[in-house]
Amino acid sequence: MAMTVSTVMRTRRSDCPIAYGLELFGDRWTLLVLRDLLIEKKTRFGEFLASAENIASNILADRLSRLEQAGLVSHQIDPRDRRRRVYVPTPTACALIPAIVELAYWGAVHDSRTGAPANFVSAYEHDRTALVAGMFDACSSARQKGD
Amino acid sequence: MAMTVSTVMRTRRSDCPIAYGLELFGDRWTLLVLRDLLIEKKTRFGEFLASAENIASNILADRLSRLEQAGLVSHQIDPRDRRRRVYVPTPTACALIPAIVELAYWGAVHDSRTGAPANFVSAYEHDRTALVAGMFDACSSARQKGD
Repeated sequence: MAMTVSTVMRTRRSDCPIAYGLELFGDRWTLLVLRDLLIEKKTRFGEFLASAENIASNILADRLSRLEQAGLVSHQIDPRDRRRRVYVPTPTACALIPAIVELAYWGAVHDSRTGAPANFVSAYEHDRTALVAGMFDACSSARQKGD
Repeated sequence: MAMTVSTVMRTRRSDCPIAYGLELFGDRWTLLVLRDLLIEKKTRFGEFLASAENIASNILADRLSRLEQAGLVSHQIDPRDRRRRVYVPTPTACALIPAIVELAYWGAVHDSRTGAPANFVSAYEHDRTALVAGMFDACSSARQKGD
């Protein structure tokens, strides 16, 4: 049974909605795992491990487990290899897409060495609402495929 | 002279625009300081210190200093007391308002015990664009008052 972010909080520091999110992803890694899950459509442990930031496997396992306890990730048996798992985002995780899009846009605009795809920046500037809606639909359908 | 986030990065892990932001605020406190600065319109050290999360004064001083090095905060002499400082957001910091609004909305909707004001949630759902634009204007004018 999925718990809420509150259940896996170290401490509840305030009732602020920003502090609530930070209890879950106020570290250097969790939001990158969510990026891989929500934007890059990664589903397998080895795919997350292969990202450019070189996350350590023990940190990745911990963050996936925390996200699962918090109700943002669920896992299923991998149909290709029944000894392995595939990870899929929950609706609560897909709901983070607008926040991730805004962070990505800010980073893309303010980092002179950004690797953000130019078509992401132009799609955002052309029609942010459509970009977010499209990514949200893709997240929801990735989730349903996993059901 | 303001530097960029890259200048104060511990390490550059990738060219990902989300990883770029996380180098600056991928911790439990920095985004709360930005919240106080951008949303709560706090300008004085003691005001930041008084927030509900009970940030320690050494952590607050460190985060304000890092934000200033990264070009997100600037300080001036406090006109009320010339021995003290007031902190004001830079345009780069005001540009984080959309991301902070999305994180706050996500937290407000997913935390059953949220302290987010009901009028924030209804304003977001009624007209997100207008809400963000209003907060952005308020941030820019707070900045100009400090100039």
